[in-house]
Amino acid sequence: MSFDSTEHPHRRFNALTGEWVLVSPHRSKRPWQGQQEEPEQEHRPAYDPTCYLCPGNPRVGGEVNPKYTDTYVFNNDFGALTADVPTGGIDEGGLLRAEAESGICRVICFSPRHDLTLPQMTTPAIRKVVDLWVSEFATLGARPDINYVQIFENKGPMMGCSNPHPHGQIWAQRTVPGEPAKETERQLAYYQEYGRTLLADYLKVELEKKERVVLENEHFVVLVPFWAVWPFETIVIARRPVQDVTQLSDPERDALADILRRLTIRYDNLFSISFPYSAGLHQRPTDGQEHPEWHLHMHFYPPLLRSATVRKFMVGYEMLGDPQRDVTPEFSAGRLREQSEVHYKGAVE
Amino acid sequence: MSFDSTEHPHRRFNALTGEWVLVSPHRSKRPWQGQQEEPEQEHRPAYDPTCYLCPGNPRVGGEVNPKYTDTYVFNNDFGALTADVPTGGIDEGGLLRAEAESGICRVICFSPRHDLTLPQMTTPAIRKVVDLWVSEFATLGARPDINYVQIFENKGPMMGCSNPHPHGQIWAQRTVPGEPAKETERQLAYYQEYGRTLLADYLKVELEKKERVVLENEHFVVLVPFWAVWPFETIVIARRPVQDVTQLSDPERDALADILRRLTIRYDNLFSISFPYSAGLHQRPTDGQEHPEWHLHMHFYPPLLRSATVRKFMVGYEMLGDPQRDVTPEFSAGRLREQSEVHYKGAVE
Ligand SMILES: O=P(O)(O)O[C@H]1O[C@H](CO)[C@@H](O)[C@H](O)[C@H]1O
Ligand SMILES: O=P(O)(O)O[C@H]1O[C@H](CO)[C@@H](O)[C@H](O)[C@H]1O
Repeated sequence: MSFDSTEHPHRRFNALTGEWVLVSPHRSKRPWQGQQEEPEQEHRPAYDPTCYLCPGNPRVGGEVNPKYTDTYVFNNDFGALTADVPTGGIDEGGLLRAEAESGICRVICFSPRHDLTLPQMTTPAIRKVVDLWVSEFATLGARPDINYVQIFENKGPMMGCSNPHPHGQIWAQRTVPGEPAKETERQLAYYQEYGRTLLADYLKVELEKKERVVLENEHFVVLVPFWAVWPFETIVIARRPVQDVTQLSDPERDALADILRRLTIRYDNLFSISFPYSAGLHQRPTDGQEHPEWHLHMHFYPPLLRSATVRKFMVGYEMLGDPQRDVTPEFSAGRLREQSEVHYKGAVE
Repeated sequence: MSFDSTEHPHRRFNALTGEWVLVSPHRSKRPWQGQQEEPEQEHRPAYDPTCYLCPGNPRVGGEVNPKYTDTYVFNNDFGALTADVPTGGIDEGGLLRAEAESGICRVICFSPRHDLTLPQMTTPAIRKVVDLWVSEFATLGARPDINYVQIFENKGPMMGCSNPHPHGQIWAQRTVPGEPAKETERQLAYYQEYGRTLLADYLKVELEKKERVVLENEHFVVLVPFWAVWPFETIVIARRPVQDVTQLSDPERDALADILRRLTIRYDNLFSISFPYSAGLHQRPTDGQEHPEWHLHMHFYPPLLRSATVRKFMVGYEMLGDPQRDVTPEFSAGRLREQSEVHYKGAVE
């Protein structure tokens, strides 16, 4: 009997972070008697008078949204980070250590339409979202008090999203958070050794193997990473090793919009529901240093495992030991590759 | 204006893992319009003929449970780890790396009573669970193919627990998972520098400050760690720096049962529900080395934030950046300290 990664439990190494995931391919047969998720209710009006993100409506903080027609961005009324924090901290023998942290939290409405989500928007409409990411990254990243800009989206109530109006967020802050810090370390070590970015070489390997590739266009590739933790986790990788969205050419921005649309349609089609996920861009720190090692990419972390109602729980063992998954990344890539790029609800806009 | 950790956003350093958490004390005022959790149904029979953990019932794998009268342990019928895995792996330029992993997954029934949970059991009954942890750790840890033994419990459907019968699990394996590996590294560095365990010194600081201490007995202390990520996260620390449960004296085992009972009663009383959590012991690796740096402790990671129906979501920013919390650990410790140690449902057994 020899080791077979489609059958035997194994650990996979995440080349981007240096962490491991436990893969249990045989475990997918396990019966599920636990919590059933409730799929999001699907019939939303194009305009909701009670929604604090719809055009023309008042927000919780008292301000009124303009009658915006494509995208709209504003400072989060309940941001986890604020700009006006006095410096200071605590340090007691290295055991109690805290540091003041300052930053800015922004909210980005993707569309004036309350009833849409990214996969239901046109490519030109998504391109406007990409353009906003570019201008926000440029403006926030240029501030001397901002050294990292995290752009992300929580989609669906299962992912803690409290408003179904299509929107994302930006948390920009003084320090570089843990995840991009780990990725900086690994990418830098690789770049120093080989003079190429880690993701450029990784992409090359994946494009030869094909088994984890989900879809491609001229400038981007989507694949289920070899080290994926979430059942249908994917990574969107720029073919050209750019450090951040401001370096994308006009055709590359179009291509990013195109690939996001096609990927999110496949996700929705997988279980014929509005597919929940958290997703976000990882880009170079805006700390004023050159970062030739950094290679722009976007992570999609969707929680569902087997159907619209059965999710993967990252709980006991995962919190105390290592993340664990029940199906192989290759299996998941195959499922996503099979999906149509026509949305199951038909064209909406 | 000077820095005030009860008001200003800040980052706290986890001395056990070397990671940071973003604390946003001001953010607790944020209104919540997102997903509402459904509290678990509370009326369960003492015996459920359809439960695969109740005494005398058949399991999915076909075996029949004995008519056990206190605790009962068996191999998980759908374990994520199996013992008979051929060695082997993959390594392509450090980018695709996998290793076969072997191990054993065990299930521990805490009580024959289907309707109980730890806080509703007597201290002598919980002591039997502690004794089982001890014998399991000893037996599994002695195997040459097992270098780490993770004992844990997922409580409640919100934490992916698929059967309400009171039970925990053990996943024992060849390699040391990421979380205990990080803790080993930090504890070892501290021990090498000071000749004392990190947690012994940390405990001393916390017992002087008192503000994060929740409850104590002669041999254990429960506190909300300075670096807590989950709203009501706690850590149970042994006063004596022992490396694993087998080193606990008879009175220390009783004291562990006592403190677990009192802590879980406080948790249930906090929102007057059966409080969901994932919890587990962290102990020395069973790799045949001396581990004087290791200090036995137990983590409790409960998801609820503000009430029985509003949980904390570790999503977009947390998955892509750093964990984030909305109330301070000091506030949460105060709330837990306020709770009675009489269960809101009264004595059950
Ligand atoms: O083993 P169980 O209780 O069926 O499953 C639960 O705990 C496991 C260990 O934390 C997780 O991997 C599963 O996602 C969770 O549903
Ligand atoms: O900012 P929101 O959408 O209100 O909140 C959501 O996203 C945040 C950032 O990932 C999380 O901290 C919250 O727990 C989650 O509910």
